[in-house]
Amino acid sequence: MASDEAEVLAVNAAFYGAFARRDLAAMDDLWARHAGVACVHPGWDAVRGRAEVLASFRAILTSPSAPAIFVTRPRATVLGDAAFVVCAESVDGNELVATNLFVREDGAWRLVMHQAGPIARREAPKRTPPTVLN
Amino acid sequence: MASDEAEVLAVNAAFYGAFARRDLAAMDDLWARHAGVACVHPGWDAVRGRAEVLASFRAILTSPSAPAIFVTRPRATVLGDAAFVVCAESVDGNELVATNLFVREDGAWRLVMHQAGPIARREAPKRTPPTVLN
Repeated sequence: MASDEAEVLAVNAAFYGAFARRDLAAMDDLWARHAGVACVHPGWDAVRGRAEVLASFRAILTSPSAPAIFVTRPRATVLGDAAFVVCAESVDGNELVATNLFVREDGAWRLVMHQAGPIARREAPKRTPPTVLN
Repeated sequence: MASDEAEVLAVNAAFYGAFARRDLAAMDDLWARHAGVACVHPGWDAVRGRAEVLASFRAILTSPSAPAIFVTRPRATVLGDAAFVVCAESVDGNELVATNLFVREDGAWRLVMHQAGPIARREAPKRTPPTVLN
């Protein structure tokens, strides 16, 4: 039997697989049925609610400009019946960082929250630490 | 007795209070001791581990350019002994969106993950939904 961590990483990989294949049925299957879900696409305000989140993915995945995407450096942390993965996303060659939150529902790990944002290597963000940390 | 949701929102508010006051001791107190923590500051790659996350906040909060910050529109979802809040942040007048993940440890809700990113209202992000959703 796979560990919780391995199971969560498998579901995380399935999320990016569904995204990459533009597989809306698989995407629908991955999101929680009971818990309230939310999603923050890069640069966008939060989308809240299962129907709204799936509509946002439908719009992205059926767009002619749907990006090529794959996941790297995933790391899972299990917190009982919830778990989160922090990972990097390669989206049309740009690197983003994402947090995916999962909950165990009816014996399966399902997504409840996804937030992704760009890594701006060459810009000084507002909340940047200084270069010298003592 | 406050509901879990109210307790989580109070800890979420305490996080932004510590940030606004540049109160490193309060910030330290807010983060989980046992669970593995991670943090994604806007535009930055993930920071992993309690010492590293707190060092990143120390660098931000002791910088002369530490931003003015306050939280708006927080919404909490409780998932047993974990919970997440999606909220907006006003940072030096710019609006960001953030996800904060909490875990119940030793009877208190503590932060395990924070990710914030800008809302880019005037730019078309890579993963933008089209304007017309059918």
